Amino acid sequence: MKSWIRYRSSNNRVGFGLLDELDQIHVHDADMFDTPISTGEILKVGDVVLLSPCQPGKIVALWNNFHALAAKIGKPVPLHPLFFIKPSTSVCATHVNIKRPKSYGGKIVYEGELGIVIGKRCSDVDPGDASHYIFGYTCVNDITAVELLNEDLNFAQWTRAKSFDTFGVLGPCIVPGFDWRAASVVTTLDGVERQNYPLSDMVFTPEQLVSHISRDMTLLPGDVIACGTSLGVGSIKDGSSVRVAIEGIGALFNRLI
Amino acid sequence: MKSWIRYRSSNNRVGFGLLDELDQIHVHDADMFDTPISTGEILKVGDVVLLSPCQPGKIVALWNNFHALAAKIGKPVPLHPLFFIKPSTSVCATHVNIKRPKSYGGKIVYEGELGIVIGKRCSDVDPGDASHYIFGYTCVNDITAVELLNEDLNFAQWTRAKSFDTFGVLGPCIVPGFDWRAASVVTTLDGVERQNYPLSDMVFTPEQLVSHISRDMTLLPGDVIACGTSLGVGSIKDGSSVRVAIEGIGALFNRLI
Repeated sequence: MKSWIRYRSSNNRVGFGLLDELDQIHVHDADMFDTPISTGEILKVGDVVLLSPCQPGKIVALWNNFHALAAKIGKPVPLHPLFFIKPSTSVCATHVNIKRPKSYGGKIVYEGELGIVIGKRCSDVDPGDASHYIFGYTCVNDITAVELLNEDLNFAQWTRAKSFDTFGVLGPCIVPGFDWRAASVVTTLDGVERQNYPLSDMVFTPEQLVSHISRDMTLLPGDVIACGTSLGVGSIKDGSSVRVAIEGIGALFNRLI
Repeated sequence: MKSWIRYRSSNNRVGFGLLDELDQIHVHDADMFDTPISTGEILKVGDVVLLSPCQPGKIVALWNNFHALAAKIGKPVPLHPLFFIKPSTSVCATHVNIKRPKSYGGKIVYEGELGIVIGKRCSDVDPGDASHYIFGYTCVNDITAVELLNEDLNFAQWTRAKSFDTFGVLGPCIVPGFDWRAASVVTTLDGVERQNYPLSDMVFTPEQLVSHISRDMTLLPGDVIACGTSLGVGSIKDGSSVRVAIEGIGALFNRLI
């Protein structure tokens, strides 16, 4: 299956293209989301640095979107998607270090997730039409400074805990037409498996998420919906590395420094 | 005092410039935040349509940032700014209608606020340096679908309640060097005064907000920090108009339809 990537080449040029099964990048030009044009140029993936595969204006990130997690934390399954926004400045590519904020010495956790990449501007979309607005799927590691969440008893600080630079890990690529129904999210910490949950356990499917959220705000090309995580969230020690993989998409690999 | 505005001219051209005391726009070119250049052209403000004075990538919006409001709701003054993000797509200019979401029949409230417009990329800024990153000040009406806030008892939906298109009213202009210490926010609903509170009652000053928030996320030119509201928040009936004014900046005027 072909996938879209963004890269920085050895001559410091930022570009994007289609990655094939032979690890060759078929360079494209113009707009990834609107009739990208092949330039004919081919690069080897080993010769470039991967960037985040898109540059979202916002990441809409879900809480409590898996039945198994809801059961474990003893909360009812929500009737409407529950979300917060991670800013564009939080975006981080694979193989880039996650940076501990200077102002925070507490526990930092990984959350492996499926990401939906929006392909077309959308508002008030019916569930039956939602798939037309999905460009493809990517992996997300929704990094969280978890001790900030309930630091103030009167206001859960979802935005603050999750908005630091490098806390929105996306990539390595975007796979159009990815069949999430049969896939699992597998997160390993220093090589030890910590999360392995089926995406079929989602409360709101990607199509339902796009429809619901598009009724709450306009989604733009490149925006990402992070579908929420499930069981196995845990903390990352400084110096440890975390890998979030979805078979059929690829893997994110990042170290916390 | 001169102020920056953005406009759409009669020939449908989008531009920006400095507004003088005679309601003349001194048109500028290039980047408002980085050495804007006067073109020499002068327009009359009556001949253009005002747009939002900037196009923030994000609006970072405060909760519980006034002593009087904290006392009224019986909550302690926070130790760190408490905030959520309103997306770029929520931005609305003065004299544009606020649109009731199709999916929501409940109460919609106004919240008159001071807005800080960021002028330079900033991260980890000391309070003493924060003023260098403030381009100027504007008025904000932080519109809220208030019944969504606590619709789910397990997750306060700040983002959802405040992110609908047209719910981030900004403008009418940006005033560099504005002295907020002596100013008040005055909100009128159908001509009747509903809010009139002094900005000197803020818990975290603009400089403190920029410093604290820049330690939580990178702020970019054009980003807006909405400083939070104080006493007198109330609902807007469909068809009613709301005006948020700060003397020395100007007034936002919008109708809910």
